[in-house]
Amino acid sequence: MKVSATAAAAALFFLGAGHAGAQEPTGMPISAQLYTVRNAGTLDEQLATIARAGIRYVEPFQFYGMTEVPIDQFTALLAKHGLKVSCMHIGFGDLVDNTDHIVEYNKALGNTRLIVPALRASVVPDDKEGWQAMGRVFATLASRLKAKGMKIGFHNHTVEMKVFDGKTGLEWFADAAGPDVILTLDVAWAARGGQDPAALLGRLKGRVWNIHVKDNAPAGTAEDEGGFAAAGKGTLDWDRILPAAHAAGVTWFTLEHDKPKDAGLVLKEGTAFVTPRLEKILGAR
Amino acid sequence: MKVSATAAAAALFFLGAGHAGAQEPTGMPISAQLYTVRNAGTLDEQLATIARAGIRYVEPFQFYGMTEVPIDQFTALLAKHGLKVSCMHIGFGDLVDNTDHIVEYNKALGNTRLIVPALRASVVPDDKEGWQAMGRVFATLASRLKAKGMKIGFHNHTVEMKVFDGKTGLEWFADAAGPDVILTLDVAWAARGGQDPAALLGRLKGRVWNIHVKDNAPAGTAEDEGGFAAAGKGTLDWDRILPAAHAAGVTWFTLEHDKPKDAGLVLKEGTAFVTPRLEKILGAR
Repeated sequence: MKVSATAAAAALFFLGAGHAGAQEPTGMPISAQLYTVRNAGTLDEQLATIARAGIRYVEPFQFYGMTEVPIDQFTALLAKHGLKVSCMHIGFGDLVDNTDHIVEYNKALGNTRLIVPALRASVVPDDKEGWQAMGRVFATLASRLKAKGMKIGFHNHTVEMKVFDGKTGLEWFADAAGPDVILTLDVAWAARGGQDPAALLGRLKGRVWNIHVKDNAPAGTAEDEGGFAAAGKGTLDWDRILPAAHAAGVTWFTLEHDKPKDAGLVLKEGTAFVTPRLEKILGAR
Repeated sequence: MKVSATAAAAALFFLGAGHAGAQEPTGMPISAQLYTVRNAGTLDEQLATIARAGIRYVEPFQFYGMTEVPIDQFTALLAKHGLKVSCMHIGFGDLVDNTDHIVEYNKALGNTRLIVPALRASVVPDDKEGWQAMGRVFATLASRLKAKGMKIGFHNHTVEMKVFDGKTGLEWFADAAGPDVILTLDVAWAARGGQDPAALLGRLKGRVWNIHVKDNAPAGTAEDEGGFAAAGKGTLDWDRILPAAHAAGVTWFTLEHDKPKDAGLVLKEGTAFVTPRLEKILGAR
């Protein structure tokens, strides 16, 4: 049996992919969701905008009939801008229908985390049993992806914050999904859905691998920006949220804004706000 | 308020789509799964092959990244060959991700039944609870589609025939999915999965709207045709299956062969076999 050095290295990388040690950050664990900069020109220009904010990691997204970026082009642009992938957002249906291709594409990106950004309205549960059932389906998918060295996760908006029998839909989902399904808690959407993000992080201890760090502008302001604000410029209590995230086992922090007028500024302001606070919590890196 | 005659007719059609009265056959309720003729030339030639067998209905399919046939082209070809659509097979993920487009496309085809042909390996349940969870997810999708005048269904292969706690996965799925989710029982796959199709139809009484009429060749024969045979040319006991289907509430019979050497011949032989038997059961039409 003959194994090339490249194949052996790849095998070692993916054998370790189920563990916390894989795909871990150099320096501060700060990433940017590519969606934030989607209107900032070409992909080259979008990635440049992220890099100029001093960020080293990115979350790409691919869903709902988008044309896929050719993998060679994507990896070349990431290298050009000194960026690595921290996870990728993939539409649920596409992930189910085209699992093998998506796994292959993400391995080429050096990514092991596939995050479902939302459920389409056609399958959003409207009761506890529905959230549990969806969690069970994700558990099946997680077990199949684990065998391929990949993890699956789920990112919330507001609909997951609705409470049934004293717990949010997201919690019923997470309980049924089991520990192989990781979560991205979008704290701004969580707050809009009526939940206290810090308290929710405590209840989801050990289940949330990253949070989406974005802020809600005061009511009635920033309406042309979807009511969002750069982290620290809005109403969220980051002095509670960031320590709560750390205490709950969150290891990555992803800057996001759904509708920024100036995506570059939002990322710079977010980085400037969150970096010293994370250094205080995590220690300098 | 001004309503055109066309719009009114369309509204009446879709108001009735949830009922058995909609999209019902003229003449014998025999359809052909388009997959049978997929290698018989262009779509024009494929539909011609179906029409030449004396069949008036067709089940198109669309899944896993196939290029969609432009709707105007599809409707023109159906009209050219005097064919109507009895249901359409749609990939699960595509149905979830692109629900609105698929509903619009199928309304243009005059079709109200969307059948998921299979679950991808990434989400096939391997226990009773997994099948129940998937059934619950289909129930959610069914309720959302019902509001749009559409029905969702599921078609089996062998994996759904595996038994847990005395019932097949398909039965646990159907129980959890509820009556708004309809089934296509593929009797040849059911038999290959170890179930007696006639007995299974009895246990699924009221849940199966159509069966896929195809036969299993005797073991070790027709290996170049996937081991399948035209209805009546194989090992299945149609004198039990067809009456059992009728007794279970099955109203449509769809000819299929997964890998025919001569698709036209298979459809002609199937039609010749099944028509007199259905006339005996249903009465001449």
